[in-house]
Amino acid sequence: MVWTRRHVLSLADFSPADYDVVLQTASSFREVLSRRTKKVPTLQGQVVANLFFEPSTRTRSSFELAAKRLSADTLNFAAGTSSLSKGETILDTAKTYLAMGTDMMVIRHKEAGVPQAIAAEMDRLGVRVGVLNAGDGQHEHPSQALLDLFTICTLFDSEQPRLSLLEGKKIAIVGDILHSRVARSNIWSLTASGAEVHLAAPPTLLPRWFADYVADSDDRSAPNPRQLFVHWTLNPALENADFVMALRLQKERMTSHLLPSLREYHQQFGITRDRLKLCKPEVKVLHPGPVNRGVEISSDLMDDPQFSLISQQVTSGVAVRMALLYLMGGGKVA
Amino acid sequence: MVWTRRHVLSLADFSPADYDVVLQTASSFREVLSRRTKKVPTLQGQVVANLFFEPSTRTRSSFELAAKRLSADTLNFAAGTSSLSKGETILDTAKTYLAMGTDMMVIRHKEAGVPQAIAAEMDRLGVRVGVLNAGDGQHEHPSQALLDLFTICTLFDSEQPRLSLLEGKKIAIVGDILHSRVARSNIWSLTASGAEVHLAAPPTLLPRWFADYVADSDDRSAPNPRQLFVHWTLNPALENADFVMALRLQKERMTSHLLPSLREYHQQFGITRDRLKLCKPEVKVLHPGPVNRGVEISSDLMDDPQFSLISQQVTSGVAVRMALLYLMGGGKVA
Amino acid sequence: MVWTRRHVLSLADFSPADYDVVLQTASSFREVLSRRTKKVPTLQGQVVANLFFEPSTRTRSSFELAAKRLSADTLNFAAGTSSLSKGETILDTAKTYLAMGTDMMVIRHKEAGVPQAIAAEMDRLGVRVGVLNAGDGQHEHPSQALLDLFTICTLFDSEQPRLSLLEGKKIAIVGDILHSRVARSNIWSLTASGAEVHLAAPPTLLPRWFADYVADSDDRSAPNPRQLFVHWTLNPALENADFVMALRLQKERMTSHLLPSLREYHQQFGITRDRLKLCKPEVKVLHPGPVNRGVEISSDLMDDPQFSLISQQVTSGVAVRMALLYLMGGGKVA
Repeated sequence: MVWTRRHVLSLADFSPADYDVVLQTASSFREVLSRRTKKVPTLQGQVVANLFFEPSTRTRSSFELAAKRLSADTLNFAAGTSSLSKGETILDTAKTYLAMGTDMMVIRHKEAGVPQAIAAEMDRLGVRVGVLNAGDGQHEHPSQALLDLFTICTLFDSEQPRLSLLEGKKIAIVGDILHSRVARSNIWSLTASGAEVHLAAPPTLLPRWFADYVADSDDRSAPNPRQLFVHWTLNPALENADFVMALRLQKERMTSHLLPSLREYHQQFGITRDRLKLCKPEVKVLHPGPVNRGVEISSDLMDDPQFSLISQQVTSGVAVRMALLYLMGGGKVA
Repeated sequence: MVWTRRHVLSLADFSPADYDVVLQTASSFREVLSRRTKKVPTLQGQVVANLFFEPSTRTRSSFELAAKRLSADTLNFAAGTSSLSKGETILDTAKTYLAMGTDMMVIRHKEAGVPQAIAAEMDRLGVRVGVLNAGDGQHEHPSQALLDLFTICTLFDSEQPRLSLLEGKKIAIVGDILHSRVARSNIWSLTASGAEVHLAAPPTLLPRWFADYVADSDDRSAPNPRQLFVHWTLNPALENADFVMALRLQKERMTSHLLPSLREYHQQFGITRDRLKLCKPEVKVLHPGPVNRGVEISSDLMDDPQFSLISQQVTSGVAVRMALLYLMGGGKVA
Repeated sequence: MVWTRRHVLSLADFSPADYDVVLQTASSFREVLSRRTKKVPTLQGQVVANLFFEPSTRTRSSFELAAKRLSADTLNFAAGTSSLSKGETILDTAKTYLAMGTDMMVIRHKEAGVPQAIAAEMDRLGVRVGVLNAGDGQHEHPSQALLDLFTICTLFDSEQPRLSLLEGKKIAIVGDILHSRVARSNIWSLTASGAEVHLAAPPTLLPRWFADYVADSDDRSAPNPRQLFVHWTLNPALENADFVMALRLQKERMTSHLLPSLREYHQQFGITRDRLKLCKPEVKVLHPGPVNRGVEISSDLMDDPQFSLISQQVTSGVAVRMALLYLMGGGKVA
């Protein structure tokens, strides 16, 4: 197994081997995290800059912890107190962090394409800095999809998680597909695994063109049309599903005429213990967090360890992000 | 001496042995802090999350430094940029930090009871995460009272500070008792030591029911009525006092009809060199900071090392917080 | 070579030997920064507090990285969430960080003189804490001028950068001189080197008294009048210049009647490839950043490595700040 990527920007062009390298490396770091001293000296003396142009606590903390556990030094850039408000361009901000000696940049921005633009600039300059997309607009959030993948795959083989374990599984993604970078990244990874992906949402959050958009993508060969399905009601997506991924409903959506009301949304698309009876008996529920309890998922279901993988997702996040930073930093594949 | 607490939430149920363990452990860390390399590897690889839902610089820096000097990694949660504003519950935020691999949580919140609720949830989940209350509403601020206790006790025996050294001492607590979590925590520790505690404040900041509230507490046996006294004027509290603790006057109090004016407050309850003549000659003055100079304490008195312990309190704070994190992290009692 | 300064507050009283010690020490740290593990254990266990009362990302990150690469622990103080808004004085805030065990303080404040006041208080208290001025109002920004100096000197001798290398060079400083702490610090260092310094700006940003103000300074012997020149047009400053330093134009200046418009400013004082033809062929351009592209410097010139030293300045910044923290921390001069 080899890893040749300097950047992690999108899963659209990830190969099956890329996924397996990440899964396998994350698996070995998960072992580190179960020790009392959860730290390895791998990135000692290297600098990871967390450039979060869009505020975030959860994802930034996860990356910060991943970097610290690899013994890297971290720099946190807080949007709002930044030079951006002083008229500096985003590329100039990135180049400033480059010139300070940053080895890897973890970038979140509310506009799609910003991490890609920064990565392209780094390559143009001929520097060996890795750029990781920690969420760009409504485009992609690859580390989230990779941690979802890791969480699911380790259920089937905790020692050797690999993409092929999901072949033939049915996975429902429910909620605000249209605005979700998490959904977009997950569609690439899950269809690549050979799973069937069923999207379910109200039409305002899952327009008819969405499936075509994915199918027409020239980023890579389109997902097999027998693998990606679109539903405007919940039940067909849930029937015999192995996994249900609920997406976070942004407050903005709730107040901008895209939804009648939270109560109606929950009634139609909320995941409840009752609705899960349509799924396979061993079905598991995922959510990228933070959850609006009682909206996307009923509160009791969220806390039920028989069904909920939400807490495992957060734990996987640190291991997967350690793996990504490690691989981007030139670490050997185990 | 043994330490059996996973959490430090309140001093209401602290035993004399608990106090002595903290005092003795802090004493050994104070020695570490006097070295040039003020660091020990005790908590290497462990993660301390500072979850300050209420903004704070002073206390957060003190905890952050304590954690770093024990070689822990720290995660800082900044209220305002957090998921809370995204609709997540506080318990879900705490569980997210748990799932990331946090070993200890230091929690401040403007509502009383939040650290307790989080600790109860951690216990319910059966995880070994320690929760430290860094100030919850107007309820308690145990690490502040413990650092006050440490500061006072080391005056009498710098090698072996212990609770019993305060037996029979007279300690005045002056100011906004009603709204003060610092006062509430200090009342438990100081009465437990056998000291006489005299509260002094205007009636608006020290209502008649306050003494009953303390006496009626079922958290533990009420303080001996011969140990806790309430005064609406300053002089009876100061007479022959060994220590005077001035409390911070929040700006809000000054503008909300609870006080006639700052000038009148200072005239009636401000601690001045002149008023200290009522006390024992070797009297010392404490204040949890930040101080409104010329309001709670006269400016010259605050800077007079003969009387002021304010700077020692800050220094004690780091040693006491190192001790608490160390003990909660399973460190052996010396 | 010896270093006897506890604080770095101003360059007005820097001796030639002081400059050379900083340049030589920075040179050895630049070598550390070129290694893969860019870290040395010099300040292990020491605490550097970054007290940025005025928000900053770039300078704070540079100091934070410098401290971490010396293995110091860092505390960041964020204006806004601070005790200052609670009525505490700046000196009391500094004394709180002192009492916590801070070894060095890096201070930025929008009022001139704050770092000096804090340093004076530390000296009065007889403590061995070093204070570094990271920008005080419109007064000085010594670490910026030192990194500019280092950037220029290493062009002439990368192994042994020293002040005397600039003797007889012509350096133009262009832009908002009046409000610039960067210009003020650079005037001291560059005239001390024996270079000719030519200031160019519109009269509103470079009043007639400015040259006198510098000449009359009793901080040290005034710069030789044959070394400091004032121009209200750009060309005489550029003619045969070896270096051009463009200053950042604050947005406030642009909207407060001090300038007709950005377009006119750029037309009259913007540095362009065309205008550089007046300079020496090997002329280099500096800017302290962040740059308003197309205002102070034309966008293409800024990105042209043949002329622009902007990125080297940022890199020099980390090496120079490591040198300053190292020397203030009692490090031996190489």
